[in-house]
Amino acid sequence: MVSKSQTKLITSLQQKKYRTQSGLFVAEGPKVISELLDGGFKFHSFFSTDTSEITAVNHFLVTETELKKISFLKTANTSLALFEIPKTKPLKDLGLILALDAVRDPGNLGTIIRLCDWFGVQQLICSQDTADCFNPKVVQATMGSLARVQVHYLSLSEYFEKTTLPIYGGFMEGENIYSAKLPKEGIMVMGNEANGISEEIIKTITHKITIPRFGKIQKTESLNVATATAILLSEFRRSTEM
Amino acid sequence: MVSKSQTKLITSLQQKKYRTQSGLFVAEGPKVISELLDGGFKFHSFFSTDTSEITAVNHFLVTETELKKISFLKTANTSLALFEIPKTKPLKDLGLILALDAVRDPGNLGTIIRLCDWFGVQQLICSQDTADCFNPKVVQATMGSLARVQVHYLSLSEYFEKTTLPIYGGFMEGENIYSAKLPKEGIMVMGNEANGISEEIIKTITHKITIPRFGKIQKTESLNVATATAILLSEFRRSTEM
Repeated sequence: MVSKSQTKLITSLQQKKYRTQSGLFVAEGPKVISELLDGGFKFHSFFSTDTSEITAVNHFLVTETELKKISFLKTANTSLALFEIPKTKPLKDLGLILALDAVRDPGNLGTIIRLCDWFGVQQLICSQDTADCFNPKVVQATMGSLARVQVHYLSLSEYFEKTTLPIYGGFMEGENIYSAKLPKEGIMVMGNEANGISEEIIKTITHKITIPRFGKIQKTESLNVATATAILLSEFRRSTEM
Repeated sequence: MVSKSQTKLITSLQQKKYRTQSGLFVAEGPKVISELLDGGFKFHSFFSTDTSEITAVNHFLVTETELKKISFLKTANTSLALFEIPKTKPLKDLGLILALDAVRDPGNLGTIIRLCDWFGVQQLICSQDTADCFNPKVVQATMGSLARVQVHYLSLSEYFEKTTLPIYGGFMEGENIYSAKLPKEGIMVMGNEANGISEEIIKTITHKITIPRFGKIQKTESLNVATATAILLSEFRRSTEM
């Protein structure tokens, strides 16, 4: 059974305002849910169509129809959970850090969190106007990687003023990523889907880098921010760890 | 003005069956349309809200409301065109060729066509059950790159039996892409989003390669097919062209 107040709460969590107010977010499907649990995220409540999974007081057995009603997915899974939004740990000036300057698309953010997890980037910093990592679309797109990547929302310019790490930025013009000497520790900044890195942040970049085009006709406007991030993180790891 | 029969035709082109029947596909927005024209694609008809663009008999001035009605986009652009689906040129056993085995998501296919354009991969071959490159979602996601990449639909296994090129496949286990000796000419195969490369095709692969994980906790299930393609094409070009 899903009560009226539970339905109201869950539905409200599509909006950031209500996620902040309640301190909760939604995750769906056994895979994502179990990886978040493994990562130390705490259950608020859990809804499943499978009797064998109902083992605690905050677990609720629901019918497929009920689950469909509370699900944010086109095709509802077999379970849905509300998790507590964890307190963010302090950011450390350590290792390779990825920074996003106003990346707005939840799908792109989800893919980028998955890439961080793959390439062992444990700290992701996001400008306040980047998509929210607890947005249901982001949570599903991360496929559970959110459990292993710490996401920090802060003023990039304030942090960049204080840090001693070198700050690399992805640009259309810059040093060729394949020949640039890349460090093991540093910050890699990726910009907004349409406008790239903002003027304010450009000033703080210490190294402008670019992915060269290989097409004969140099018309491809730009790479999608998630595919560009994939190539840049791959190069950072290849050139410093292999 | 958009006539009833034009509306009916345009709406039908969301479906592959009607694209094949009519030999037409839809592209929207000045950028995508002009790049397709530059690439040699032929106008069937053109609809725009801008009087200055109406310069031929197959150009039609439309109101915003009319455009909204025929557009496939959430937010209609200022123009929409019907193009003729071109005859595919003969496939040549030449250069770096990307092959897709049942990549189903139109967004992934669009991103991959854009990546081919960026990395100068001029021939993309797709199994018959890969998404259709003239699907409106694919056309828009390519951002015009479709004008510069030839897409061939064929039986991968038949082609792989005949070709003399080495056949590389992206797998979860295989030779480390960063240390593998990659050729300038060859075929790189990427598999389906959920199931990877099919059994039939695995038999024909001559080199299994993989992108190593760098995360300490080796849980990330896999990379998205488009981000994995980005990394692999980047490595092919870096190691043979730089």
